Amino acid sequence: MKGEQVEVGEISRESTRPSQSVRVLSLLDFILRIIAALGTLASAIAMGTSRQTLSFVTRFTRFRAVYKDLPTFTFFVIANSIVCVYLVVSLCLSFIHIIKSAAVKSRIFLVIFDTVMMGLLTAGASAAAAIVAMAHNGSTGANWVPFCQQFRSFCDRISGSLIGSFVSVVVFILIIIVTSVAISRR
Amino acid sequence: MKGEQVEVGEISRESTRPSQSVRVLSLLDFILRIIAALGTLASAIAMGTSRQTLSFVTRFTRFRAVYKDLPTFTFFVIANSIVCVYLVVSLCLSFIHIIKSAAVKSRIFLVIFDTVMMGLLTAGASAAAAIVAMAHNGSTGANWVPFCQQFRSFCDRISGSLIGSFVSVVVFILIIIVTSVAISRR
Repeated sequence: MKGEQVEVGEISRESTRPSQSVRVLSLLDFILRIIAALGTLASAIAMGTSRQTLSFVTRFTRFRAVYKDLPTFTFFVIANSIVCVYLVVSLCLSFIHIIKSAAVKSRIFLVIFDTVMMGLLTAGASAAAAIVAMAHNGSTGANWVPFCQQFRSFCDRISGSLIGSFVSVVVFILIIIVTSVAISRR
Repeated sequence: MKGEQVEVGEISRESTRPSQSVRVLSLLDFILRIIAALGTLASAIAMGTSRQTLSFVTRFTRFRAVYKDLPTFTFFVIANSIVCVYLVVSLCLSFIHIIKSAAVKSRIFLVIFDTVMMGLLTAGASAAAAIVAMAHNGSTGANWVPFCQQFRSFCDRISGSLIGSFVSVVVFILIIIVTSVAISRR
């Protein structure tokens, strides 16, 4: 009789342990999504509001820099906005996973979209980073002048806006790993 | 007795079906890895061997374009090479998964590295794409001239080299999805 009780206890402990660890992973996933959403939002706003007008004006032109001058920066703002909206929407599903820790199909659904969104965000961030690097250093081979020498505050702003995006990329990698571990432990 | 036999049959069919589907997924994973490896290899070679020397020479300069002129292209070649080597190494583990379809920990190990490598590859490809787009169209805002007007064959080569890389990014997304489904069905 005593032996039986111990066995029953062990089985129930075995079955609750994975469920509990999955719940912790789901909570971690939820927090990571909030961080990534804030990162992309900050990046989109920082880039989207960056503009600088130089103090000197010639007869015909006013020297002004906005992010829309370069299509890569427009893509960066769009990519960050899309990913931010996706992350906010995915929070609902992530919250459901905290309650229903056994759900598997919806987790795979999230992994699929997370991977695609991570690709989109990485593409936007890297493309913008390549142009920002060119704006800072220029290229003697391609005969491209570094326009950061004139538009210093604009360049500082666009360089800073990359940080949120790259942090979100790293957080996305963590999210995908956490979800995969949760799927394996259901 | 008859009822019992049917039940036993159903149970064994239930237990072999996931194992078989996981084996198919493992085989698919193996094939996708080969495709991605070939894509990154082709990209690295195409970009690494791209060079053009213009036929006219001035007294002091010879007009020559190689991928090393722009650090972004060097990063592109390095990223593609690293990912290609990783994919070839990961083929061993992927092959083991075809035989041992129940393995979970090694699959999560693969998901982690796959996600990181996908990030690296997407970063390299997008950064190079941003510079290639600038080389084709230039930028009036930044006062950057489109050097593709002179270096036509060099530009065609570097544009083409992006294809293999972007195909590999899409294949990477498929690989991560396939691995996640395999983990859920073990």
